Amino acid sequence: MYNLPESVENLINALSMLPGIGPKTAQRLAFYILKSPVDEANFLSDSVISARESIRPCVICGNFTDKEECNICRSQERDREIICVVENPQDILAIESSGEYNGLFHVLMGALSPLDGINPEDLRIDELVGRVKKEEIKEVIIATDPNVEGEATAAYIKEILNKYPVKITHLAYGIPMGGNLEYADGVTLGKALEGRREF
Amino acid sequence: MYNLPESVENLINALSMLPGIGPKTAQRLAFYILKSPVDEANFLSDSVISARESIRPCVICGNFTDKEECNICRSQERDREIICVVENPQDILAIESSGEYNGLFHVLMGALSPLDGINPEDLRIDELVGRVKKEEIKEVIIATDPNVEGEATAAYIKEILNKYPVKITHLAYGIPMGGNLEYADGVTLGKALEGRREF
Repeated sequence: MYNLPESVENLINALSMLPGIGPKTAQRLAFYILKSPVDEANFLSDSVISARESIRPCVICGNFTDKEECNICRSQERDREIICVVENPQDILAIESSGEYNGLFHVLMGALSPLDGINPEDLRIDELVGRVKKEEIKEVIIATDPNVEGEATAAYIKEILNKYPVKITHLAYGIPMGGNLEYADGVTLGKALEGRREF
Repeated sequence: MYNLPESVENLINALSMLPGIGPKTAQRLAFYILKSPVDEANFLSDSVISARESIRPCVICGNFTDKEECNICRSQERDREIICVVENPQDILAIESSGEYNGLFHVLMGALSPLDGINPEDLRIDELVGRVKKEEIKEVIIATDPNVEGEATAAYIKEILNKYPVKITHLAYGIPMGGNLEYADGVTLGKALEGRREF
């Protein structure tokens, strides 16, 4: 049986470690890289290293940043009385894309999942409590994912924050915009009915 | 609006250049890389560069290799009287995975596509003719892709090789193994009928 050169095997293995990239896709990407201009391959290689080396968690909110504190925590144009709690840094991008939020963020770096060994002390919950105590926070919006782990995490955080004089809210559940009602699942429709608002 | 750190933007842009990786997937991969262990990010970065720098086309067949001639062209256990002509190096992997072929290969590095500016002189056709003239080749199997460009390329190569004393064949067209007949498309079924064999 014919074996690929070792460096190509290594490249395929490295690409296969990425999420959602199976062996067949990794092979296709590797062959593309082999054929691509050297400049493009260099750009990819350098970007991986320089991003990995320059980026760290913001000391305040946990968002990815290349400084000590992230752009959002340093901004003077943000509403500093409200914190939106998310599981991951990429959730910040999603919420920012709505254009409807101008407060601060707090990244938990995951969600509670005892089966995967992720317990409260593995998340940045103490740091959140510290901020609620120290900063002049009036509202905490919990925006964890709408799944079992996210809901459990939200309930846990609500429990802990209840003893502080801060308003605790969560994102509205309901039917997503732009779809057809007939394709919405029953659980979502149930939440949409439960949360119905005067028109 | 919140902007990602520049090094993260660069990483997303670099990943977006890969085939089949859209901006959303690139973002997901980038965030994964930011969270991955440094070793893993280094392995990915090093693999890209070392594969891109060490791999070149085999001087004989055009397959990717880290030597002057590829493993297949150097092998003494291969049938050196038969050449299978493919469009790309990854096609060699596919044919090798069948376990049914033990001859040599010739990589064209593409298929004729005048609209994309790919003409006969852009493919490794002269090199193929040179091999047919110089080596003791008895059969050339044309295994270009079963689409318009591949068929045109196959026809062009057949025309050119016709003047040499070599048998020219192409892969059988027909229904793929393991599927349901009802899902086969009409063109494929037509080819399968046309090429029917005694049972």
